Amino acid sequence: MSDSSSERKTVTACVLVIGNEILSGRTRDENLAFLAEHLNQAGVRLMEARVIPDIQETIVATVNEVRAKFDYVFTTGGIGPTHDDITSECVAAAFGLPLVRNPEAVRRLQQHYPPGGLNEARLRMANTPEGATLIDNPISIAPGFQIGNVFVLAGVPAIMRAMFEGVKHRLSGGLPVLSRTVTSGLAEGAMAAELGAVQDRFADIDIGSYPFFRMGRPGTAIVLRGTDPVRLAHATAEVFQMMVALGDQPVEAEG
Amino acid sequence: MSDSSSERKTVTACVLVIGNEILSGRTRDENLAFLAEHLNQAGVRLMEARVIPDIQETIVATVNEVRAKFDYVFTTGGIGPTHDDITSECVAAAFGLPLVRNPEAVRRLQQHYPPGGLNEARLRMANTPEGATLIDNPISIAPGFQIGNVFVLAGVPAIMRAMFEGVKHRLSGGLPVLSRTVTSGLAEGAMAAELGAVQDRFADIDIGSYPFFRMGRPGTAIVLRGTDPVRLAHATAEVFQMMVALGDQPVEAEG
Repeated sequence: MSDSSSERKTVTACVLVIGNEILSGRTRDENLAFLAEHLNQAGVRLMEARVIPDIQETIVATVNEVRAKFDYVFTTGGIGPTHDDITSECVAAAFGLPLVRNPEAVRRLQQHYPPGGLNEARLRMANTPEGATLIDNPISIAPGFQIGNVFVLAGVPAIMRAMFEGVKHRLSGGLPVLSRTVTSGLAEGAMAAELGAVQDRFADIDIGSYPFFRMGRPGTAIVLRGTDPVRLAHATAEVFQMMVALGDQPVEAEG
Repeated sequence: MSDSSSERKTVTACVLVIGNEILSGRTRDENLAFLAEHLNQAGVRLMEARVIPDIQETIVATVNEVRAKFDYVFTTGGIGPTHDDITSECVAAAFGLPLVRNPEAVRRLQQHYPPGGLNEARLRMANTPEGATLIDNPISIAPGFQIGNVFVLAGVPAIMRAMFEGVKHRLSGGLPVLSRTVTSGLAEGAMAAELGAVQDRFADIDIGSYPFFRMGRPGTAIVLRGTDPVRLAHATAEVFQMMVALGDQPVEAEG
């Protein structure tokens, strides 16, 4: 996580997955993995994620804590038409802003629903904090929104992904994080001391060790991440050589 | 989340997923879904989950925040032999306890590794906060541990699951949460007002609305959760009747 060799600042983000269904085990979250991958590609480092229930006080307090702590916050879930969809009003409360009916959002919903279909519950989906910027929803129309550094996205994965694609140009990323992986047939405990020594020499490279079992045999994937391609190449070469010296035939790849 | 009808207290938990690899998008977390489901089955309500990086200050501060806030805390990840495995020392620091080499854990590792295999890096896996109770690892031997209300589990899913199975008898759950699902061919926006009225009459039942699309057609799963089987049955019947009154043919099922 050190960033000493980069000249641009590290840009950070937090994801808030909002919804009882994830915490009850009924629904498996798919949004965090997508956002983790795509934020990092955009040069934004995902530093934390939280899954929180549909409870007003929890959502308001959490939004206020993390929007102060990180450069960007992305919420997923809770912007539909039913009583358990309370994200928009909670984000408005967190910012101390009135919740207003956004005229452009109303216009989009009016165009989308057949006559008589746009009932009061669906009109709630046009509510945003005052001054919010809409986030397009090309799938089911009801938009998300951005207010300050908080991006409010849908919970349905296909809609969330489409919304994110529409806003990623608004993000000012830092240096993109580059990544190399060295895969070894050694158990991680067999090279832990040597690997720690490489990490000590490369404080600006984040070196992770991930053990696995394949066909009953242990192995380890070493992932090196950093913003400086030359330093990353040097650290990767040291890890590779260290494994060779321990009698292994490692495999190295990008990503 | 209301619990007014139960006489036993609600028992709560928080899960901390520790590891840069989840936040970078390299690895998709599988542990949260398992723990969510199995904690709820044990009568423990998972109220929050956080994914945090391998950064000492973050882990220590988060452990201290959530162990004060929830009845149980479960951590996954960061207890292996490499330099990026820092969960044990962070949990010790959070409790203000010395990190000691647990003799029973050393004994298990000595039995497991061939002569010469138990190097200093692997011996680190026998470190626990002073006074911790070990958690068995039937797969790769290196144990987890419990200290106070914090359970420290492995990150590798198969090992984490085996560890959890070994400790779930230690948990004092509240009333188990019962669940019913009513599936409708109606879009959620078409019944949102009526559903909200049912929720208003059943403050002790948590009613969630989850839209889906199947073969291009919208539908909604309404999930009702509560500890009182009679109240749950009444609320479920009202949701079912409400859908029938709107011209739908809903399907009801346990879970």
